[in-house]
Amino acid sequence: MNKIYNPNRKDWSKLLERPTKTVEDIEATVLTVFDEVKLEGDKAISRYTQRFDQVELKEVMVSSSEIEEAKLLVSNELKNAIKVAKSNIEKFHAAQKTEKVSIETVDGVSCWQEKRPIQKVGLYIPGGTAPLFSSILMLAIPANLAGCKEVVLCSPPNKEGKINPAILYTADLCGVTKICKVGGIQAIAAMTFGTESIPQVYKIFGPGNQFVTVAKQLATKFGVAIDMPAGPSELLVVADDTANPGFVASDLLSQAEHGKDSQVILITTSKGIIEKVEQEVEQQLLDLPRKEIAEAAIKNSKLIYVENDQEALDIINEYGPEHFIVCIKNEEYYVENIVNAGSVFIGNYTPESAGDYASGTNHTLPTNGYAKQYSGVNLDSFMKSMTFQKISKKGIKSIGNAIELMAEAEGLQAHKNAVTLRLESLKDE
Amino acid sequence: MNKIYNPNRKDWSKLLERPTKTVEDIEATVLTVFDEVKLEGDKAISRYTQRFDQVELKEVMVSSSEIEEAKLLVSNELKNAIKVAKSNIEKFHAAQKTEKVSIETVDGVSCWQEKRPIQKVGLYIPGGTAPLFSSILMLAIPANLAGCKEVVLCSPPNKEGKINPAILYTADLCGVTKICKVGGIQAIAAMTFGTESIPQVYKIFGPGNQFVTVAKQLATKFGVAIDMPAGPSELLVVADDTANPGFVASDLLSQAEHGKDSQVILITTSKGIIEKVEQEVEQQLLDLPRKEIAEAAIKNSKLIYVENDQEALDIINEYGPEHFIVCIKNEEYYVENIVNAGSVFIGNYTPESAGDYASGTNHTLPTNGYAKQYSGVNLDSFMKSMTFQKISKKGIKSIGNAIELMAEAEGLQAHKNAVTLRLESLKDE
Repeated sequence: MNKIYNPNRKDWSKLLERPTKTVEDIEATVLTVFDEVKLEGDKAISRYTQRFDQVELKEVMVSSSEIEEAKLLVSNELKNAIKVAKSNIEKFHAAQKTEKVSIETVDGVSCWQEKRPIQKVGLYIPGGTAPLFSSILMLAIPANLAGCKEVVLCSPPNKEGKINPAILYTADLCGVTKICKVGGIQAIAAMTFGTESIPQVYKIFGPGNQFVTVAKQLATKFGVAIDMPAGPSELLVVADDTANPGFVASDLLSQAEHGKDSQVILITTSKGIIEKVEQEVEQQLLDLPRKEIAEAAIKNSKLIYVENDQEALDIINEYGPEHFIVCIKNEEYYVENIVNAGSVFIGNYTPESAGDYASGTNHTLPTNGYAKQYSGVNLDSFMKSMTFQKISKKGIKSIGNAIELMAEAEGLQAHKNAVTLRLESLKDE
Repeated sequence: MNKIYNPNRKDWSKLLERPTKTVEDIEATVLTVFDEVKLEGDKAISRYTQRFDQVELKEVMVSSSEIEEAKLLVSNELKNAIKVAKSNIEKFHAAQKTEKVSIETVDGVSCWQEKRPIQKVGLYIPGGTAPLFSSILMLAIPANLAGCKEVVLCSPPNKEGKINPAILYTADLCGVTKICKVGGIQAIAAMTFGTESIPQVYKIFGPGNQFVTVAKQLATKFGVAIDMPAGPSELLVVADDTANPGFVASDLLSQAEHGKDSQVILITTSKGIIEKVEQEVEQQLLDLPRKEIAEAAIKNSKLIYVENDQEALDIINEYGPEHFIVCIKNEEYYVENIVNAGSVFIGNYTPESAGDYASGTNHTLPTNGYAKQYSGVNLDSFMKSMTFQKISKKGIKSIGNAIELMAEAEGLQAHKNAVTLRLESLKDE
């Protein structure tokens, strides 16, 4: 692990640099798949499913009998765990509902803001050996609370043409309206253009490999919105001697096992904890099934010592971590003053994996420093706010002249006319 | 004007098609400017300002004496109009503030959501003969209410190296922290990368021509967020015999004068109003200074008759207009059931230009059908929501097992370990 003591402020941006990926070489592939799906619809989908997933499907849509079968295959223990998570996620996201905002800005001028659901959303859930059913909880639950009419889920089939039972069980539990056996670039293309069997959607959510990431970026060129730009997962822990080094190490490792490009950083005002955490990491690493991946990520990790809390906070805000764990005596200082972070985990008994699964917060968070300007997924991600205004005769008399003057100063005479006509009609009232 | 009676549902998407622009030919230019600004900073800015704005500037930053001078040049009448608008916009956007959302999802698991300001934002305001100072009101006021630390404004200088006084006056009034004399692609590039004199920002807002639009799109590739994708302005009016045809015509024209590619649509359940509005449009058009522009837009406009309110509403939701005027007896039906629109204007005395300037709502709205998935600019556009969680010993004992089971089912052993270690430490408590 790389240990850095009192880094100079001018070196911070170099020190905090994230690994950059070049995606240009896969952009051409993504564009080709998009073109073909747009042109040929289901025919292209079927061809790419054969090529990439090595299976020929008779039917893209998951049937209700497949869902019933899946329910029998998921253990009751796991079902109960999923229900615990669902209940917490539901509570926290339901609490995010906002009322209509309504005011009369001046007498006779009523303005209000209301949020209305995005009618059609698409969720992408990767397949493979690790079925990310937790991402379904994080996306389908708020989609349903928001009132989205159509919630389409795409996930790649395995070689037997099936989707993992835990994915089907969770999707059904959370009110997904359509589940499609399609993965990768072709799934994103299908939800962008729509095919004979797969509906077009207005916004696409969910994780994926670099092909899916580039495909989501491309989708935005065709008028579809996406949840947020994606990058490798990351965790920053701020700790002092009040932190449990074993717990801190376990959190760093839980991030490191995501991928070799995962980012793991410890910031501390205690030199002692650096050594202890390093030892614990080495120890715990030995038993991990995904040891090879975690080891690579840990090699690039950084343990940074700084003199005081102010310095620590500044460096953290400069980095803008996706996940931010605070295990330090002066925790209030960090919680109050952090401005750039996706989600914050406070105290020794709040592991990052709690937020990944079951505390109630959303695990779809801004990576790559995007916490500086993007929110993590929340209830509002599935809605858009619209404004309304209704002006009475009295109201237009009151603000009409200001509009006329401003429109004229901006050289927009027809804008002025629209008010002048109305004011003239009210001259004698 | 194109009159269409009872269009067949299957022809709607063709009928509602927006003019598409190809931007590929200007992408290369934009990329070149970005590369040079990134590499050479102020030097490149100066070169492009000379080339595009035909002026050599000693200083990019607007000085306080220039601002004082501008204040003397704006008429008191216009200043007062701007203050009326400011007051209303401030009231409406301040009302959008949301409280911290805080709940205990289960005993010992506290989760909360807070919004914190984006620290650095950039506003782009076009120059030219029509100084769009109203856009400063719409952007700088919520930026300040949100608490953004740095609010940078870029606007191109004229050939004398000056910025329009109304722009400087409004920027100063609304608390812009830095005003830079730089326009076009080079302004967007400067705010994306930062130069010696122009600060880098995290999110860029504001209108612009197609070069600015493409530059903003490109900025997102370099980690900067933008307010929303842009397209030509558009207005849809739904009206029946209770509408005043002269008012409706004036609203259609106020949209049409924006540009030849502006979109203007009337939907009605009354055949009579179509003829009356058409006559009024022809009449009012004669006196407009921007007649040529408005005429071209009107030529492409559509007057569509449908049988009933349900049909009208469906076609409107399919289109997703930026501005939606409701002048119809059954107004409640439309207000309650519209799901895809940027801003809604209700009744005969609510011209669209009221929202452009002074009602209090924001005029930065989704065009091009983006109302289906994007909000207009509002207070939240200048903030991001962060989540927090704090779990007690009791809390982790309560949800720990669910996390362990789910992490294991997803094949993420280190995620499980982070919980297991904590649960083991609490065995005897």
